[in-house]
Amino acid sequence: MIDKENIGQDMYNLAGRLFPICRSLSGKGVRQTLDILKEYVEEAGISMQIHNVPTGTQVFDWTVPKEWVINEAYIEDENGNHIIDFKENNLHVMGYSTPVDEWVELDELLEHIETLEEQPDLIPYVTSYYRERYAFCMSENMKRSLKPGKYHMYIDSELIDGNLTYGEILIPGESQKEVFISTYICHPSMANNECSGPALSVNLARYIMSLEKRHYSYRFIYIPETIGSITYISSHLDYMRSHIVAGFNISCVGDDGDYSVVQSRYGDTLADKVILNLLKYRENAKVYSYLERGSDERQYCSPGVDLPFVCFCRTLFDQYPEYHTSADNMDFVSPAGFEGAYDVMTDAINALEHNAYYQVQVLCEPQLGKRGLYPTVSRKDAWDAILVTRDFLSYADGRNDLIDIANIAHVPVTEMIGIAKKFTEHKLVVGEWRD
Amino acid sequence: MIDKENIGQDMYNLAGRLFPICRSLSGKGVRQTLDILKEYVEEAGISMQIHNVPTGTQVFDWTVPKEWVINEAYIEDENGNHIIDFKENNLHVMGYSTPVDEWVELDELLEHIETLEEQPDLIPYVTSYYRERYAFCMSENMKRSLKPGKYHMYIDSELIDGNLTYGEILIPGESQKEVFISTYICHPSMANNECSGPALSVNLARYIMSLEKRHYSYRFIYIPETIGSITYISSHLDYMRSHIVAGFNISCVGDDGDYSVVQSRYGDTLADKVILNLLKYRENAKVYSYLERGSDERQYCSPGVDLPFVCFCRTLFDQYPEYHTSADNMDFVSPAGFEGAYDVMTDAINALEHNAYYQVQVLCEPQLGKRGLYPTVSRKDAWDAILVTRDFLSYADGRNDLIDIANIAHVPVTEMIGIAKKFTEHKLVVGEWRD
Amino acid sequence: MIDKENIGQDMYNLAGRLFPICRSLSGKGVRQTLDILKEYVEEAGISMQIHNVPTGTQVFDWTVPKEWVINEAYIEDENGNHIIDFKENNLHVMGYSTPVDEWVELDELLEHIETLEEQPDLIPYVTSYYRERYAFCMSENMKRSLKPGKYHMYIDSELIDGNLTYGEILIPGESQKEVFISTYICHPSMANNECSGPALSVNLARYIMSLEKRHYSYRFIYIPETIGSITYISSHLDYMRSHIVAGFNISCVGDDGDYSVVQSRYGDTLADKVILNLLKYRENAKVYSYLERGSDERQYCSPGVDLPFVCFCRTLFDQYPEYHTSADNMDFVSPAGFEGAYDVMTDAINALEHNAYYQVQVLCEPQLGKRGLYPTVSRKDAWDAILVTRDFLSYADGRNDLIDIANIAHVPVTEMIGIAKKFTEHKLVVGEWRD
Repeated sequence: MIDKENIGQDMYNLAGRLFPICRSLSGKGVRQTLDILKEYVEEAGISMQIHNVPTGTQVFDWTVPKEWVINEAYIEDENGNHIIDFKENNLHVMGYSTPVDEWVELDELLEHIETLEEQPDLIPYVTSYYRERYAFCMSENMKRSLKPGKYHMYIDSELIDGNLTYGEILIPGESQKEVFISTYICHPSMANNECSGPALSVNLARYIMSLEKRHYSYRFIYIPETIGSITYISSHLDYMRSHIVAGFNISCVGDDGDYSVVQSRYGDTLADKVILNLLKYRENAKVYSYLERGSDERQYCSPGVDLPFVCFCRTLFDQYPEYHTSADNMDFVSPAGFEGAYDVMTDAINALEHNAYYQVQVLCEPQLGKRGLYPTVSRKDAWDAILVTRDFLSYADGRNDLIDIANIAHVPVTEMIGIAKKFTEHKLVVGEWRD
Repeated sequence: MIDKENIGQDMYNLAGRLFPICRSLSGKGVRQTLDILKEYVEEAGISMQIHNVPTGTQVFDWTVPKEWVINEAYIEDENGNHIIDFKENNLHVMGYSTPVDEWVELDELLEHIETLEEQPDLIPYVTSYYRERYAFCMSENMKRSLKPGKYHMYIDSELIDGNLTYGEILIPGESQKEVFISTYICHPSMANNECSGPALSVNLARYIMSLEKRHYSYRFIYIPETIGSITYISSHLDYMRSHIVAGFNISCVGDDGDYSVVQSRYGDTLADKVILNLLKYRENAKVYSYLERGSDERQYCSPGVDLPFVCFCRTLFDQYPEYHTSADNMDFVSPAGFEGAYDVMTDAINALEHNAYYQVQVLCEPQLGKRGLYPTVSRKDAWDAILVTRDFLSYADGRNDLIDIANIAHVPVTEMIGIAKKFTEHKLVVGEWRD
Repeated sequence: MIDKENIGQDMYNLAGRLFPICRSLSGKGVRQTLDILKEYVEEAGISMQIHNVPTGTQVFDWTVPKEWVINEAYIEDENGNHIIDFKENNLHVMGYSTPVDEWVELDELLEHIETLEEQPDLIPYVTSYYRERYAFCMSENMKRSLKPGKYHMYIDSELIDGNLTYGEILIPGESQKEVFISTYICHPSMANNECSGPALSVNLARYIMSLEKRHYSYRFIYIPETIGSITYISSHLDYMRSHIVAGFNISCVGDDGDYSVVQSRYGDTLADKVILNLLKYRENAKVYSYLERGSDERQYCSPGVDLPFVCFCRTLFDQYPEYHTSADNMDFVSPAGFEGAYDVMTDAINALEHNAYYQVQVLCEPQLGKRGLYPTVSRKDAWDAILVTRDFLSYADGRNDLIDIANIAHVPVTEMIGIAKKFTEHKLVVGEWRD
C-alpha cells in the first residue's frame, strides 16, 4: 500500500502542490490546502474532519482573528510597471495587510517596505497579525534600486468575520491512548517551513493505516500555528491530558540537514525518550533544549498544559538562512530530505508500538540452546553473536520499557523490536502496557 | 542613603580603622572593634546588641576561654635594643602567650620563636589557644641574623576570667524567616583575613536598611571564629533551625582575586543555590566543596547543626600566600576588591528578596502583543528580543523559584528580577513564598 | 597464621596443583579439585561441605547434565603416531565429546577439528555441553600441516548418570548477614580462567578465619560455571536474598594486568560500592558495566534473582588473547598477580567489616585539642595534617556508611578504617549496622 521506493518523491510532489497557495492564519488558502490533504488521505481510506471555529471566539488569553482576504497587491511606478506583484510571489505583501490604494512619493513608500539587510537578494516573510496595518516585502537590492518618484501602493484585501479552519484525522488502535501528530498550514509559499510538515504528516497517516495491527490510536491535526494549537487545546485539554502518550509537532522536515528535536519543557516525556534514542544513533543529529523552541510545542508544553510533546525537524527553524525568506522554496527541499524524516518518524512509531514493559519469565538465564536460540558449541566467539539478545533478556526485568532496554544496551530501539517479538513468541518474556 | 559611588572606599577606610587593634578571642581588642562597628551602623539607624558570655561557660564540647590581656611584649638584646616589640606589630607575640620576664642565651630564646621558613621576610600569625605557653613571632631572616648572646624575653600578659563578647544586628522584614550573615572579629592586625569581613558586613546591613521593603528579616553577628560560632549556636540552635533560610559566613572579602564560595556540606542549600547562580556568570569565580572549608561554616554546617550556610570570600583563605602573615595588610586589600564582594552579596540579597515560586496565570502562551509586551510585526528577529522574558514565562509553572528559572534559562538570576516584577504587576504571574 | 610474605607464591603453587586436572561440568576432575581445596582449608581449621546434585535434576530452565567420563583420546596417523593426545594436553578433546573409534580420510577428519585461525599456534578450548557430538582441538598450524591419508579418531568417553558436585564453606560472624564469594571449578587445564579463582578464594577463607573478630558471616562456593550457580541459586534463593549483603564472583585473578570489576546489573549494590571505591585509587583499574558480563554474575544478577554481586578479575576474561586457549597456562599467571588480587579482596573485606553508619556524638566540631588529637599551636599547616580525620567527622552524620564518607573525601575507604576505629574508641562517634 505504501510505495516505499518512491515515498520521498511522493512527499516532495505533494509539497509542490501545496507550495503556490497563499495561506494565512485562516481563509481560502487554508481551505484549499486542507482540500488537497483530505483527498490525499482519502485515497488510502482515511477520513479527515474539517472543523471551523468562528472569528471572535475566546481561546484562553487569545481571540480567533478575522479572516484575511487578499485579492491583489502590487507597487506600480510612474510608468505603470508593477515593480512587485503579489501574483508573482505571495511573500510580497505582509500577511494581514489592510487595503490601500494611494500614490505616494518614494520616501513615504519606504515606510511601508520590509527587507532583509543581511540577505539583500531575498524577500522576507513578514506578518502583522494582531494590529491592523499594511506593508510590502521585497529584497533589499530592489529597495536600494528604487528611484525617487511617485509610486502606487495597491492592496485589495479585507479582514472579515469568518472561521479558523483546521483538519483532523483519527486512526483508532487497540488502545484508546493516542499518539498525536501536529503540523501547521498557515504560511504562504514556503517549502520547508510550511509544505513539508503536512506532506510528511499525511504520509505518516497512510503508513499507520497500512499497519496490520496498531496498539495505539493516532490523531493528526492540521492547524494554523500558535492560534490554531491554542484553539485546539482550549477545547480539548482534558481529553488530551488523559489520552496522549506522546506527541510530535512536525515542522521543517524536507531539507537535507541535521535531524533535530526540540525537547519538551523538562525533556522527560515518552516523546523525548523515543526520539532521543533514535537520534543518538544517527549521524548529523541535534538535540535542542526547550530553550530553542519556536513552533507549536510552545503551546503543547506550556505550564499547566504540559502535554508530552517534542518538535521534530530536519534543520531546526531559524538554524538555516533560508528560513522565513523567499529562498525557502522547492529547491531547498528534496525527496531524500523528506525520506530521512519519514524514516525517523516511522521508526519512532514502530518503537512506540512495541514499547511495552518486558518481563522475562524464568529465573536465571534461560537455556537458549534447547530452543535453538544459541550455538550449542561454545567457542570463543559464540557469546558476541547474541549480545544484544542477551542484553534484552538481562534488562527485561519488568522495570524497563523497550526504549529503556535499548538505552541501557546502547543500541537504537529498532534493534530491540525483532528480539522482543521473538522472545514474546517463545513465551520467554511477556510485555505489559502501562499506559 | 548608600553612597554607591564610594562604597568600596568606605569599606576600605573602615577596615583601615579596625586594622591596628590587637584582637584575640576575647578582651579589649574585640570590644574596641565592636564599638567602632556599632557606631558605624547606628549612623544608619541600625542598632547593634553587644552580648557577653562568661569565661568557663560550657558550649557543646568546648569551654569559653579566659580573656587574654596583653600590655607589653618585646625581646631586648644586651645593648637594651628591642629587637622586636609588640608595639610595632601585634603579630610579634603568639596569641594567648603567658607572661615571661627572663634573660636567656640565644639557644633558649630560639625555642620560643616562630617563623615561616618558606616566606623568610614575613612574620607569621600564631596562636596557642588551649594550652598555656608563650612564644614570639618574627621573620625567618631576623631569626637567622640573631647573634649569640643574652636576650631578655619580656611579655606582660594575663589570662583572666572575663567574657566572650559579640555583636548582633537584627533588621526585621515582612517574614520572620531570616537571612543570616556571620563574620569574625578575633584576629590581630590582618586586613583581609579579619578586617574585611566586618567592614563588608556592616555595609550590607546599611544596604538592607535602605531597601524600600524587605521580604526576609536579616541578622548579622560579629563573633570570634570557632569558639564564637559554637557559643552562638549552642544557645540559639532551635531558633536558627526554624528561622534561617540562607546563611553566609563572610571572610577575606577585600582583595582583588577570585570570587570564591565554599559550599555547604552537601551543597544543596538556598545559600549555595543563590551564590552558585551568581558566580557562574562572573569571571574569575571559584566554587569550592565543603572539603575546602576553613572558617565558621565548619560549625554552621556541622552534622546535627546543618544550617544552610556557605562561606563567601574573594580569594579563599589559604589560597593566597599572604594569609596568616604580616603581609595580609592594608596594601593587600583595595576599594575595588571590597566593592566586588559587595556587589555579589547585594545581588544575592536582591535575588533572595524576589525568590518566590512563580506561577503563570493563563494556559498556553499569554498574548503579549495586546499588552504591549511583544512587537506586533513578526519579523525574523522579533522572537530573540524577548527570549529571557519568554523563558521566564515558560518555567513559571509553580515548580520553580526564581533562581531555578534563571538556572534553566542559563542567565544570572539578576536578569530575571525585573521580568518577574513586570509580569507580577501585569498579574500574568503570581509569586508564592514557600518558606 | 597467614604467611603474608609468601601469600602470592602460595596461591600460585596451589593453582599449579590444580592445573593438570581435566575438569568439566562434573565428574572426577571436579572431585579431585575439591579434594585438594578441602584439604587446603582444613589445614586452617575450616571445614568444606561437598554437595552432590543428581543428573536430571531440574534447576529453573535447565537440567543437571550427565557426567562426562573421558579416559583416553588421540588422533593416530597411518604410521601409528599419535599426532595429538589427550594425555599431553586435555584441551585436545572437545569437552563432552561422545566416543568414537574410526579410521577416516583427512577430509572427514577435518570436519571434527577445531582451531583458532587468528592464533595459529594455540589450541582452543571448546565444549559442546548440550548437544551430543565429538571433536578434537589443535593449533591451526598443526591442522595446516596434516597430509592426505588415513587417520584414526579415537575417543574413549562416556556420558553417565552421576552428580553435579560442588564445595561450600561457611565462616560465621557476629551477624547472620553474609558476604558471599563464588568461583568455578569446571575448566580443564587453564591457569587464569580456572585455577586462579579457587586458589584465591580458599586463601580469602583462611584470611577471614584469621581475623580476631568478624562482623559478617562469610560463605564460599566452588561450583561449575553457569549450571552450578543456577543449581545453587535454584535451591537457596530465598536464603540468599535475605542474607547476602555483598557477593563477589571471582575469576581470572592470577595475571599481572588491570584490576577489573564487572558491575552488577544496575551498578548500585554494596559489592559495587566497595570495589569501585578501592579501584578508583589503584592504577590500572578498569570498571566494566554489566554489558561486559561473562561469568556467574550473569546468574546472580539476573532479573528476579537480583543478588548484590559483582565479578572481580585482574584482566577481564576475553580482554586477554590467551583466554580460552592453551596459552592460559602457569606462565601466564604469577605470584605478584595473585597477590594484587588478594590485596584488593582483603581490602574489600576489611572495608565491609567497618562499614557501619557513623554518627558523631557532639554538636559543632569536637574539641580535638583537649583529647590530644589536634596540635595545640595553630600554625598555618596544622589544619592540613588532620584533613582526612576532619572529613570523617564532618560526614559522620548518620547518613553515610564508611564507604560513602571515603567517597565524599576522595580517599580509599582503607584510609578511613583506622580513623573510624580511633574515634569509636574515644566515643566521639558511634557506628551503627543497618543490614
